[in-house]
Amino acid sequence: MAQATTLSMSQVNSMSSDNFIEVFGNVIEHCSLVAASVVRYRPFRSLQHLHDEICTFIDQLPDVGKEGILRSHPDLAGSMAMTGQLTKESQQEQKSAGLGDLTEDERKLMARLNESYRLKFGFPFVICARMNKKDAILKGLEARLHNSAEAELLTGIAEVKKIALLRLKNLVPFPFSSDPLGSNL
Amino acid sequence: MAQATTLSMSQVNSMSSDNFIEVFGNVIEHCSLVAASVVRYRPFRSLQHLHDEICTFIDQLPDVGKEGILRSHPDLAGSMAMTGQLTKESQQEQKSAGLGDLTEDERKLMARLNESYRLKFGFPFVICARMNKKDAILKGLEARLHNSAEAELLTGIAEVKKIALLRLKNLVPFPFSSDPLGSNL
Repeated sequence: MAQATTLSMSQVNSMSSDNFIEVFGNVIEHCSLVAASVVRYRPFRSLQHLHDEICTFIDQLPDVGKEGILRSHPDLAGSMAMTGQLTKESQQEQKSAGLGDLTEDERKLMARLNESYRLKFGFPFVICARMNKKDAILKGLEARLHNSAEAELLTGIAEVKKIALLRLKNLVPFPFSSDPLGSNL
Repeated sequence: MAQATTLSMSQVNSMSSDNFIEVFGNVIEHCSLVAASVVRYRPFRSLQHLHDEICTFIDQLPDVGKEGILRSHPDLAGSMAMTGQLTKESQQEQKSAGLGDLTEDERKLMARLNESYRLKFGFPFVICARMNKKDAILKGLEARLHNSAEAELLTGIAEVKKIALLRLKNLVPFPFSSDPLGSNL
């Protein structure tokens, strides 16, 4: 997934907090509050350190907040995708999973399963699309529909963390991410 | 502050959760995660009930998350205002406080105090602009600079809750907000 610009950790650690929120605001889909919070833990030693703080922040949220994170995600191959309203990150991720090439039958099946999932759990099905292809996503959706709400909250949030790591790696690519902290700190 | 449309509580309680997040996503500035979370408490008995759940959600955040909420707010009469990048809610609120009519000296003073405040506390000065005029805001900013970080976190979050209530009242105006729940629930 190409980005217009990529950053080193020293740049991440020295940018203004407003700039940090702008750059990392969608690492957790539509939840820039996460970036606005963890920015206070700078300087980050590495990209992994930043990801760890993001995960810790999410883990400290009450369950209703974790559900809120899931609810901030769009349906896969859903109406937001059909009408071009996805964030650029989601659009690229769904495309990489082949969700732009569903047959009409696959699209209907996905819509039906997404709807059943939302009805049962009260939040949308979230999976790291870049680590799956459309067949695995459809099978995963069918299988996860049988889980409990507690299990799906855990699973959904685990997927959110995988998505976040991949989005971070796009913004701060190797080998920059392992660079020592810059002298401007 | 005129809105294009206003809602009754029964409409609030029956809209899709995606629609709810869209409508109430900026009641807490740039923190749609709050709306995406509290939507699970529907049906709301009243606007006050919705506001109470928003406040409870904020109170349950760790301090770093409360700081994140403050950090999601723009400076008053700051660069976002100067360059037309405020949310429509912030723009109207800052205008109502007379912050669009600062003299050059007042603007420079505000910028200097905002900068000092951010440096000391690590988050921006937040005040409910609709309940204050520019003189009170400048005096408040000077006075609050002497507080501890702990006190300012509490004060800033209390202001966020006032802002939220006024934003909610714009969206769900009296007398609709005290309507009984609709029969469609």
